[in-house]
Amino acid sequence: MRILLTNDDGIMAQGIRTLARCLSKEHNVLVVAPEVERSATGHAITIRTPLWAKEVKLGEEDIGYAINGTPADCVKLGLLAMAEGKIDLVISGINRGPNLGTDVLYSGTVSGALEGAVTGIPSVAISAENFNEPYFETAAHFMIEFLRRFDVTEIPELTALNVNVPSVPLHEIKGWKVTRQSKRRYKSDFERRKDPHGNDYYWMIGEYIEDDPGEDSDYAAVSDRYVSITPIHVLMQNNDYMEKLRKKIEEVKQ
Amino acid sequence: MRILLTNDDGIMAQGIRTLARCLSKEHNVLVVAPEVERSATGHAITIRTPLWAKEVKLGEEDIGYAINGTPADCVKLGLLAMAEGKIDLVISGINRGPNLGTDVLYSGTVSGALEGAVTGIPSVAISAENFNEPYFETAAHFMIEFLRRFDVTEIPELTALNVNVPSVPLHEIKGWKVTRQSKRRYKSDFERRKDPHGNDYYWMIGEYIEDDPGEDSDYAAVSDRYVSITPIHVLMQNNDYMEKLRKKIEEVKQ
Repeated sequence: MRILLTNDDGIMAQGIRTLARCLSKEHNVLVVAPEVERSATGHAITIRTPLWAKEVKLGEEDIGYAINGTPADCVKLGLLAMAEGKIDLVISGINRGPNLGTDVLYSGTVSGALEGAVTGIPSVAISAENFNEPYFETAAHFMIEFLRRFDVTEIPELTALNVNVPSVPLHEIKGWKVTRQSKRRYKSDFERRKDPHGNDYYWMIGEYIEDDPGEDSDYAAVSDRYVSITPIHVLMQNNDYMEKLRKKIEEVKQ
Repeated sequence: MRILLTNDDGIMAQGIRTLARCLSKEHNVLVVAPEVERSATGHAITIRTPLWAKEVKLGEEDIGYAINGTPADCVKLGLLAMAEGKIDLVISGINRGPNLGTDVLYSGTVSGALEGAVTGIPSVAISAENFNEPYFETAAHFMIEFLRRFDVTEIPELTALNVNVPSVPLHEIKGWKVTRQSKRRYKSDFERRKDPHGNDYYWMIGEYIEDDPGEDSDYAAVSDRYVSITPIHVLMQNNDYMEKLRKKIEEVKQ
Protein backbone atom coordinates (compact mmCIF):
# COMPACT_ATOMS: atom_id res chain seq x y z
CA MET A 1 0.00 0.00 0.00
CA ARG A 2 0.94 3.64 -0.35
CA ILE A 3 0.75 5.08 3.15
CA LEU A 4 0.80 8.71 4.24
CA LEU A 5 2.28 8.83 7.73
CA THR A 6 1.92 11.76 10.12
CA ASN A 7 1.91 12.39 13.89
CA ASP A 8 1.68 15.18 16.43
CA ASP A 9 4.96 14.62 18.26
CA GLY A 10 6.89 16.01 15.30
CA ILE A 11 8.84 14.44 12.44
CA MET A 12 11.92 13.74 14.58
CA ALA A 13 9.98 11.80 17.24
CA GLN A 14 10.95 8.24 17.87
CA GLY A 15 7.37 6.94 17.45
CA ILE A 16 6.96 8.00 13.83
CA ARG A 17 10.54 7.05 12.98
CA THR A 18 10.08 3.53 14.33
CA LEU A 19 6.79 3.09 12.49
CA ALA A 20 8.17 4.52 9.22
CA ARG A 21 11.14 2.16 9.35
CA CYS A 22 9.02 -0.93 10.06
CA LEU A 23 6.23 -0.12 7.59
CA SER A 24 8.72 0.59 4.79
CA LYS A 25 9.64 -3.10 4.64
CA GLU A 26 6.18 -3.93 3.25
CA HIS A 27 4.73 -0.64 2.06
CA ASN A 28 5.54 2.58 0.27
CA VAL A 29 5.60 5.19 3.05
CA LEU A 30 5.43 8.97 2.65
CA VAL A 31 6.15 10.86 5.88
CA VAL A 32 4.58 14.33 6.17
CA ALA A 33 4.66 15.50 9.77
CA PRO A 34 4.90 18.65 11.90
CA GLU A 35 8.43 20.07 12.14
CA VAL A 36 7.97 20.47 15.91
CA GLU A 37 5.77 18.86 18.52
CA ARG A 38 2.09 19.79 18.11
CA SER A 39 0.55 17.73 20.90
CA ALA A 40 -2.95 18.58 22.17
CA THR A 41 -3.62 20.66 19.07
CA GLY A 42 -7.01 19.03 18.56
CA HIS A 43 -8.21 19.37 15.00
CA ALA A 44 -6.54 22.74 14.45
CA ILE A 45 -5.74 23.80 10.90
CA THR A 46 -3.66 26.70 9.64
CA ILE A 47 -5.74 29.13 7.62
CA ARG A 48 -4.30 32.58 8.32
CA THR A 49 -0.64 31.90 7.53
CA PRO A 50 1.04 29.88 4.79
CA LEU A 51 2.68 26.48 5.24
CA TRP A 52 6.25 25.56 4.38
CA ALA A 53 7.31 22.02 3.52
CA LYS A 54 10.94 21.17 4.15
CA GLU A 55 12.44 18.00 2.72
CA VAL A 56 14.03 15.96 5.48
CA LYS A 57 16.29 12.96 5.03
CA LEU A 58 14.95 10.28 7.33
CA GLY A 59 16.98 7.20 6.51
CA GLU A 60 19.44 6.04 3.88
CA GLU A 61 17.05 6.72 1.04
CA ASP A 62 13.91 8.00 2.65
CA ILE A 63 12.74 11.54 2.21
CA GLY A 64 10.01 13.03 4.37
CA TYR A 65 8.48 16.47 4.66
CA ALA A 66 8.48 18.63 7.79
CA ILE A 67 5.60 21.13 7.88
CA ASN A 68 5.17 24.22 10.05
CA GLY A 69 1.60 23.13 10.77
CA THR A 70 -0.66 20.73 12.61
CA PRO A 71 -1.30 17.03 11.92
CA ALA A 72 -4.49 17.94 10.01
CA ASP A 73 -2.46 20.42 7.91
CA CYS A 74 0.09 17.68 7.20
CA VAL A 75 -2.58 15.29 5.95
CA LYS A 76 -4.24 17.94 3.78
CA LEU A 77 -0.95 19.15 2.32
CA GLY A 78 0.52 15.65 2.08
CA LEU A 79 -2.43 14.36 0.07
CA LEU A 80 -2.67 17.37 -2.22
CA ALA A 81 0.90 18.52 -2.71
CA MET A 82 3.42 15.87 -1.63
CA ALA A 83 1.80 12.58 -2.66
CA GLU A 84 1.99 12.16 -6.37
CA GLY A 85 -0.75 9.65 -7.04
CA LYS A 86 -3.15 7.74 -4.84
CA ILE A 87 -2.70 7.23 -1.10
CA ASP A 88 -4.35 4.02 0.18
CA LEU A 89 -4.10 4.68 3.90
CA VAL A 90 -3.37 7.50 6.33
CA ILE A 91 -1.67 6.53 9.60
CA SER A 92 -1.09 9.01 12.43
CA GLY A 93 1.40 8.02 15.13
CA ILE A 94 2.88 6.25 16.92
CA ASN A 95 1.94 8.76 19.59
CA ARG A 96 3.95 8.85 22.78
CA GLY A 97 1.19 8.39 25.36
CA PRO A 98 -2.40 7.17 25.14
CA ASN A 99 -5.42 8.61 23.32
CA LEU A 100 -8.27 7.09 25.30
CA GLY A 101 -11.74 8.37 26.22
CA THR A 102 -12.05 12.13 25.83
CA ASP A 103 -8.36 12.40 24.83
CA VAL A 104 -9.70 11.85 21.32
CA LEU A 105 -11.14 15.38 21.37
CA TYR A 106 -7.80 17.01 22.23
CA SER A 107 -5.51 14.69 20.34
CA GLY A 108 -3.46 15.91 17.42
CA THR A 109 -2.66 12.29 16.60
CA VAL A 110 -6.31 11.32 16.25
CA SER A 111 -7.05 14.49 14.28
CA GLY A 112 -4.51 13.39 11.67
CA ALA A 113 -6.55 10.22 11.14
CA LEU A 114 -9.88 12.07 11.20
CA GLU A 115 -8.60 14.41 8.49
CA GLY A 116 -7.84 11.37 6.36
CA ALA A 117 -11.39 10.12 6.99
CA VAL A 118 -12.90 13.49 6.01
CA THR A 119 -11.01 13.22 2.73
CA GLY A 120 -12.38 9.71 2.13
CA ILE A 121 -9.20 7.68 2.75
CA PRO A 122 -9.00 4.75 5.20
CA SER A 123 -7.28 6.13 8.30
CA VAL A 124 -5.84 4.83 11.55
CA ALA A 125 -4.44 6.63 14.62
CA ILE A 126 -2.01 4.66 16.76
CA SER A 127 -0.75 5.48 20.25
CA ALA A 128 1.54 3.80 22.74
CA GLU A 129 -0.01 3.69 26.19
CA ASN A 130 2.93 4.78 28.31
CA PHE A 131 4.53 8.18 27.82
CA ASN A 132 7.73 7.33 29.67
CA GLU A 133 8.29 3.78 28.40
CA PRO A 134 6.30 3.62 25.17
CA TYR A 135 7.61 0.35 23.66
CA PHE A 136 7.16 1.69 20.12
CA GLU A 137 8.39 -1.60 18.64
CA THR A 138 5.35 -3.38 20.07
CA ALA A 139 2.97 -0.84 18.53
CA ALA A 140 4.80 -0.93 15.18
CA HIS A 141 4.62 -4.72 15.17
CA PHE A 142 0.88 -4.57 15.78
CA MET A 143 0.38 -2.17 12.89
CA ILE A 144 2.24 -4.37 10.45
CA GLU A 145 0.34 -7.49 11.51
CA PHE A 146 -2.95 -5.60 11.41
CA LEU A 147 -2.37 -4.41 7.85
CA ARG A 148 -1.52 -7.98 6.79
CA ARG A 149 -4.81 -9.32 8.14
CA PHE A 150 -7.36 -6.53 8.04
CA ASP A 151 -8.70 -4.97 4.84
CA VAL A 152 -8.66 -1.24 5.60
CA THR A 153 -10.95 -0.50 2.66
CA GLU A 154 -13.74 -1.96 4.82
CA ILE A 155 -13.62 1.04 7.18
CA PRO A 156 -16.86 2.97 6.52
CA GLU A 157 -16.90 6.54 5.25
CA LEU A 158 -16.13 9.39 7.66
CA THR A 159 -14.75 6.83 10.13
CA ALA A 160 -11.23 6.23 11.43
CA LEU A 161 -9.79 3.59 13.75
CA ASN A 162 -8.29 4.80 17.02
CA VAL A 163 -5.74 2.22 18.20
CA ASN A 164 -4.01 2.19 21.59
CA VAL A 165 -1.26 -0.34 22.23
CA PRO A 166 -0.13 -1.41 25.71
CA SER A 167 3.48 -0.44 26.43
CA VAL A 168 4.83 -3.89 27.14
CA PRO A 169 7.12 -6.34 25.34
CA LEU A 170 5.36 -7.94 22.37
CA HIS A 171 4.93 -11.36 23.99
CA GLU A 172 2.95 -9.82 26.85
CA ILE A 173 0.19 -8.52 24.52
CA LYS A 174 -2.89 -10.68 25.14
CA GLY A 175 -4.69 -9.90 21.87
CA TRP A 176 -6.80 -7.36 19.99
CA LYS A 177 -10.14 -5.96 21.16
CA VAL A 178 -12.73 -3.71 19.58
CA THR A 179 -13.64 -1.24 22.32
CA ARG A 180 -15.98 1.66 22.92
CA GLN A 181 -14.65 5.15 23.56
CA SER A 182 -14.96 5.49 27.33
CA LYS A 183 -15.77 8.61 29.35
CA ARG A 184 -12.21 8.64 30.68
CA ARG A 185 -11.48 12.36 31.03
CA TYR A 186 -8.99 14.79 32.40
CA LYS A 187 -9.91 16.64 35.56
CA SER A 188 -8.08 19.91 35.04
CA ASP A 189 -6.68 22.09 37.68
CA PHE A 190 -4.43 25.13 37.49
CA GLU A 191 -1.47 26.08 39.58
CA ARG A 192 -1.43 29.85 40.03
CA ARG A 193 1.96 31.61 40.18
CA LYS A 194 3.21 35.18 40.04
CA ASP A 195 5.56 36.17 37.22
CA PRO A 196 8.57 38.45 37.98
CA HIS A 197 6.40 41.44 37.00
CA GLY A 198 3.73 40.66 39.57
CA ASN A 199 1.13 39.19 37.20
CA ASP A 200 -0.73 35.99 37.92
CA TYR A 201 -0.15 33.13 35.53
CA TYR A 202 -1.43 29.56 35.43
CA TRP A 203 -0.04 26.13 34.69
CA MET A 204 -2.56 23.50 33.64
CA ILE A 205 -2.27 20.39 35.78
CA GLY A 206 -4.67 17.63 36.77
CA GLU A 207 -5.31 13.96 36.58
CA TYR A 208 -7.41 11.42 34.77
CA ILE A 209 -10.78 10.28 36.02
CA GLU A 210 -11.34 6.63 35.13
CA ASP A 211 -14.88 5.85 36.26
CA ASP A 212 -16.16 4.08 33.17
CA PRO A 213 -14.73 0.56 33.29
CA GLY A 214 -16.21 -2.61 31.86
CA GLU A 215 -14.75 -5.11 29.49
CA ASP A 216 -15.47 -3.09 26.36
CA SER A 217 -14.01 0.21 27.58
CA ASP A 218 -10.91 1.44 25.75
CA TYR A 219 -8.75 2.15 28.79
CA ALA A 220 -9.78 -1.07 30.57
CA ALA A 221 -8.71 -3.13 27.53
CA VAL A 222 -5.30 -1.43 27.41
CA SER A 223 -4.73 -1.85 31.17
CA ASP A 224 -5.53 -5.50 30.64
CA ARG A 225 -2.82 -5.65 27.94
CA TYR A 226 -5.09 -5.86 24.93
CA VAL A 227 -4.62 -3.67 21.86
CA SER A 228 -7.69 -1.41 21.87
CA ILE A 229 -9.35 -0.61 18.51
CA THR A 230 -12.17 1.96 18.59
CA PRO A 231 -13.99 3.12 15.46
CA ILE A 232 -14.61 6.86 15.66
CA HIS A 233 -16.75 9.04 13.45
CA VAL A 234 -16.03 12.48 12.05
CA LEU A 235 -19.60 13.64 12.77
CA MET A 236 -20.43 14.11 16.43
CA GLN A 237 -24.21 14.27 16.41
CA ASN A 238 -25.92 12.86 19.53
CA ASN A 239 -28.44 10.55 17.84
CA ASP A 240 -30.04 9.40 21.09
CA TYR A 241 -31.07 12.95 21.96
CA MET A 242 -32.36 14.07 18.56
CA GLU A 243 -36.00 13.07 18.98
CA LYS A 244 -36.38 14.30 22.53
CA LEU A 245 -34.81 17.66 21.66
CA ARG A 246 -37.01 17.94 18.57
CA LYS A 247 -40.17 17.48 20.64
CA LYS A 248 -39.00 19.97 23.24
CA ILE A 249 -38.13 22.60 20.64
CA GLU A 250 -41.56 22.06 19.01
CA GLU A 251 -43.13 22.88 22.37
CA VAL A 252 -41.16 26.03 23.07
CA LYS A 253 -40.30 27.49 19.69
CA GLN A 254 -41.57 30.74 18.30
CA MET B 1 -28.24 32.29 35.32
CA ARG B 2 -24.51 32.66 35.72
CA ILE B 3 -23.05 32.30 32.24
CA LEU B 4 -19.44 31.80 31.20
CA LEU B 5 -19.01 33.31 27.76
CA THR B 6 -16.12 32.54 25.42
CA ASN B 7 -15.44 32.51 21.68
CA ASP B 8 -12.65 31.89 19.17
CA ASP B 9 -12.64 35.25 17.40
CA GLY B 10 -11.04 36.88 20.44
CA ILE B 11 -12.35 39.01 23.30
CA MET B 12 -12.51 42.19 21.23
CA ALA B 13 -14.67 40.63 18.49
CA GLN B 14 -18.04 42.17 17.81
CA GLY B 15 -19.89 38.84 18.13
CA ILE B 16 -18.97 38.18 21.75
CA ARG B 17 -19.36 41.87 22.67
CA THR B 18 -22.88 41.97 21.26
CA LEU B 19 -23.87 38.75 23.01
CA ALA B 20 -22.33 39.83 26.34
CA ARG B 21 -24.19 43.15 26.23
CA CYS B 22 -27.55 41.53 25.41
CA LEU B 23 -27.25 38.61 27.85
CA SER B 24 -26.21 40.90 30.71
CA LYS B 25 -29.72 42.39 30.81
CA GLU B 26 -31.10 39.07 32.11
CA HIS B 27 -28.10 37.09 33.32
CA ASN B 28 -24.84 37.36 35.19
CA VAL B 29 -22.19 37.08 32.46
CA LEU B 30 -18.49 36.31 32.91
CA VAL B 31 -16.44 36.78 29.74
CA VAL B 32 -13.25 34.71 29.49
CA ALA B 33 -12.01 34.66 25.90
CA PRO B 34 -8.82 34.45 23.83
CA GLU B 35 -6.86 37.70 23.70
CA VAL B 36 -6.45 37.27 19.94
CA GLU B 37 -8.32 35.39 17.24
CA ARG B 38 -7.99 31.60 17.58
CA SER B 39 -10.21 30.47 14.71
CA ALA B 40 -9.88 26.90 13.41
CA THR B 41 -8.00 25.84 16.53
CA GLY B 42 -10.17 22.75 16.93
CA HIS B 43 -10.07 21.45 20.47
CA ALA B 44 -6.52 22.56 21.12
CA ILE B 45 -5.41 23.12 24.70
CA THR B 46 -2.23 24.70 26.06
CA ILE B 47 -0.21 22.24 28.09
CA ARG B 48 3.44 23.13 27.47
CA THR B 49 3.32 26.84 28.32
CA PRO B 50 1.52 28.77 31.08
CA LEU B 51 -1.56 30.92 30.59
CA TRP B 52 -1.94 34.57 31.53
CA ALA B 53 -5.30 36.15 32.34
CA LYS B 54 -5.56 39.89 31.78
CA GLU B 55 -8.48 41.82 33.18
CA VAL B 56 -10.19 43.78 30.43
CA LYS B 57 -12.83 46.46 30.90
CA LEU B 58 -15.62 45.57 28.51
CA GLY B 59 -18.36 48.06 29.33
CA GLU B 60 -19.19 50.59 32.00
CA GLU B 61 -18.95 48.07 34.79
CA ASP B 62 -18.14 44.79 33.11
CA ILE B 63 -14.83 43.08 33.60
CA GLY B 64 -13.72 40.22 31.39
CA TYR B 65 -10.56 38.19 31.11
CA ALA B 66 -8.37 37.91 28.03
CA ILE B 67 -6.35 34.68 27.92
CA ASN B 68 -3.31 33.81 25.80
CA GLY B 69 -4.93 30.47 24.98
CA THR B 70 -7.60 28.65 23.04
CA PRO B 71 -11.37 28.57 23.64
CA ALA B 72 -11.01 25.24 25.50
CA ASP B 73 -8.30 26.82 27.70
CA CYS B 74 -10.61 29.76 28.42
CA VAL B 75 -13.42 27.47 29.56
CA LYS B 76 -11.11 25.38 31.74
CA LEU B 77 -9.43 28.41 33.30
CA GLY B 78 -12.66 30.42 33.52
CA LEU B 79 -14.44 27.66 35.43
CA LEU B 80 -11.55 26.90 37.76
CA ALA B 81 -9.87 30.23 38.37
CA MET B 82 -12.07 33.16 37.29
CA ALA B 83 -15.60 32.05 38.23
CA GLU B 84 -16.05 32.23 41.93
CA GLY B 85 -18.98 29.89 42.49
CA LYS B 86 -21.19 27.87 40.20
CA ILE B 87 -21.55 28.46 36.46
CA ASP B 88 -24.96 27.36 35.08
CA LEU B 89 -24.19 27.59 31.38
CA VAL B 90 -21.23 27.92 29.01
CA ILE B 91 -21.85 29.80 25.77
CA SER B 92 -19.26 30.04 22.99
CA GLY B 93 -19.81 32.70 20.33
CA ILE B 94 -21.27 34.48 18.53
CA ASN B 95 -18.89 33.21 15.89
CA ARG B 96 -18.42 35.24 12.74
CA GLY B 97 -19.25 32.63 10.11
CA PRO B 98 -21.02 29.27 10.22
CA ASN B 99 -20.09 26.03 12.00
CA LEU B 100 -22.00 23.49 9.94
CA GLY B 101 -21.26 19.89 8.97
CA THR B 102 -17.60 18.98 9.44
CA ASP B 103 -16.78 22.57 10.51
CA VAL B 104 -17.60 21.26 13.99
CA LEU B 105 -14.35 19.29 13.96
CA TYR B 106 -12.19 22.34 13.21
CA SER B 107 -14.15 24.94 15.10
CA GLY B 108 -12.70 26.73 18.10
CA THR B 109 -16.17 28.06 18.86
CA VAL B 110 -17.70 24.60 19.10
CA SER B 111 -14.73 23.33 21.12
CA GLY B 112 -15.48 25.97 23.78
CA ALA B 113 -18.94 24.45 24.20
CA LEU B 114 -17.63 20.86 24.09
CA GLU B 115 -15.17 21.71 26.87
CA GLY B 116 -18.09 22.89 28.98
CA ALA B 117 -19.88 19.61 28.23
CA VAL B 118 -16.81 17.55 29.24
CA THR B 119 -16.85 19.39 32.56
CA GLY B 120 -20.54 18.58 33.07
CA ILE B 121 -22.03 22.04 32.47
CA PRO B 122 -24.85 22.76 29.97
CA SER B 123 -23.17 24.30 26.93
CA VAL B 124 -24.14 25.99 23.69
CA ALA B 125 -22.07 27.14 20.69
CA ILE B 126 -23.61 29.89 18.57
CA SER B 127 -22.51 31.06 15.13
CA ALA B 128 -23.77 33.64 12.65
CA GLU B 129 -24.07 32.19 9.16
CA ASN B 130 -22.48 34.96 7.13
CA PHE B 131 -18.88 36.00 7.73
CA ASN B 132 -19.19 39.33 5.92
CA GLU B 133 -22.63 40.41 7.16
CA PRO B 134 -23.16 38.41 10.34
CA TYR B 135 -26.22 40.19 11.81
CA PHE B 136 -25.04 39.46 15.36
CA GLU B 137 -28.13 41.17 16.82
CA THR B 138 -30.34 38.47 15.28
CA ALA B 139 -28.23 35.70 16.82
CA ALA B 140 -28.09 37.46 20.21
CA HIS B 141 -31.86 37.87 20.16
CA PHE B 142 -32.30 34.17 19.45
CA MET B 143 -30.07 33.24 22.38
CA ILE B 144 -32.00 35.38 24.83
CA GLU B 145 -35.35 34.01 23.67
CA PHE B 146 -34.00 30.48 23.71
CA LEU B 147 -32.82 30.79 27.31
CA ARG B 148 -36.22 32.16 28.34
CA ARG B 149 -38.03 29.16 26.89
CA PHE B 150 -35.67 26.19 26.98
CA ASP B 151 -34.41 24.57 30.16
CA VAL B 152 -30.70 24.04 29.48
CA THR B 153 -30.38 21.59 32.39
CA GLU B 154 -32.21 19.11 30.14
CA ILE B 155 -29.20 18.81 27.84
CA PRO B 156 -27.80 15.29 28.45
CA GLU B 157 -24.30 14.69 29.78
CA LEU B 158 -21.32 15.06 27.45
CA THR B 159 -23.58 16.84 24.95
CA ALA B 160 -23.60 20.44 23.73
CA LEU B 161 -25.93 22.31 21.38
CA ASN B 162 -24.45 23.67 18.17
CA VAL B 163 -26.56 26.61 17.01
CA ASN B 164 -26.26 28.39 13.65
CA VAL B 165 -28.31 31.51 13.03
CA PRO B 166 -29.12 32.86 9.56
CA SER B 167 -27.59 36.28 8.94
CA VAL B 168 -30.78 38.17 8.19
CA PRO B 169 -32.86 40.76 10.00
CA LEU B 170 -34.77 39.23 12.90
CA HIS B 171 -38.18 39.38 11.22
CA GLU B 172 -36.92 37.23 8.34
CA ILE B 173 -36.11 34.28 10.63
CA LYS B 174 -38.70 31.57 9.90
CA GLY B 175 -38.30 29.62 13.16
CA TRP B 176 -36.14 27.10 15.03
CA LYS B 177 -35.25 23.61 13.79
CA VAL B 178 -33.47 20.66 15.37
CA THR B 179 -31.12 19.43 12.67
CA ARG B 180 -28.62 16.68 12.05
CA GLN B 181 -24.95 17.45 11.51
CA SER B 182 -24.57 17.17 7.75
CA LYS B 183 -21.57 15.92 5.77
CA ARG B 184 -20.96 19.46 4.50
CA ARG B 185 -17.18 19.61 4.23
CA TYR B 186 -14.34 21.70 2.99
CA LYS B 187 -12.59 20.58 -0.17
CA SER B 188 -9.09 21.83 0.47
CA ASP B 189 -6.66 22.94 -2.10
CA PHE B 190 -3.32 24.67 -1.81
CA GLU B 191 -1.87 27.48 -3.83
CA ARG B 192 1.87 26.96 -4.22
CA ARG B 193 4.13 30.03 -4.25
CA LYS B 194 7.85 30.72 -4.01
CA ASP B 195 9.13 32.85 -1.12
CA PRO B 196 11.86 35.47 -1.77
CA HIS B 197 14.46 32.86 -0.76
CA GLY B 198 13.33 30.39 -3.42
CA ASN B 199 11.43 27.98 -1.13
CA ASP B 200 7.98 26.65 -1.95
CA TYR B 201 5.20 27.62 0.40
CA TYR B 202 1.48 26.90 0.38
CA TRP B 203 -1.72 28.81 1.10
CA MET B 204 -4.72 26.70 2.05
CA ILE B 205 -7.70 27.51 -0.14
CA GLY B 206 -10.77 25.59 -1.25
CA GLU B 207 -14.51 25.54 -1.14
CA TYR B 208 -17.39 23.83 0.58
CA ILE B 209 -19.01 20.70 -0.77
CA GLU B 210 -22.72 20.70 0.05
CA ASP B 211 -24.02 17.36 -1.17
CA ASP B 212 -26.02 16.30 1.87
CA PRO B 213 -29.28 18.26 1.71
CA GLY B 214 -32.68 17.27 3.03
CA GLU B 215 -34.97 19.06 5.42
CA ASP B 216 -33.16 17.98 8.55
CA SER B 217 -29.64 18.94 7.42
CA ASP B 218 -27.99 21.77 9.36
CA TYR B 219 -26.89 23.83 6.37
CA ALA B 220 -30.17 23.36 4.52
CA ALA B 221 -32.12 24.69 7.53
CA VAL B 222 -29.90 27.78 7.77
CA SER B 223 -30.15 28.47 4.01
CA ASP B 224 -33.89 28.24 4.44
CA ARG B 225 -33.67 30.92 7.20
CA TYR B 226 -34.31 28.65 10.16
CA VAL B 227 -32.14 28.71 13.27
CA SER B 228 -30.38 25.31 13.23
CA ILE B 229 -29.91 23.50 16.57
CA THR B 230 -27.82 20.31 16.47
CA PRO B 231 -27.02 18.27 19.58
CA ILE B 232 -23.41 17.08 19.44
CA HIS B 233 -21.64 14.58 21.65
CA VAL B 234 -18.15 14.74 23.11
CA LEU B 235 -17.55 11.05 22.34
CA MET B 236 -17.13 10.22 18.67
CA GLN B 237 -17.57 6.46 18.60
CA ASN B 238 -19.17 5.06 15.44
CA ASN B 239 -21.86 2.89 17.04
CA ASP B 240 -23.19 1.55 13.74
CA TYR B 241 -19.83 0.00 12.90
CA MET B 242 -18.99 -1.52 16.30
CA GLU B 243 -20.54 -4.94 15.79
CA LYS B 244 -19.31 -5.44 12.23
CA LEU B 245 -15.78 -4.44 13.22
CA ARG B 246 -15.91 -6.69 16.27
CA LYS B 247 -16.81 -9.71 14.11
CA LYS B 248 -14.13 -8.90 11.58
CA ILE B 249 -11.44 -8.50 14.25
CA GLU B 250 -12.53 -11.83 15.80
CA GLU B 251 -11.91 -13.46 12.42
CA VAL B 252 -8.47 -12.02 11.83
CA LYS B 253 -6.97 -11.45 15.25
CA GLN B 254 -3.99 -13.24 16.66
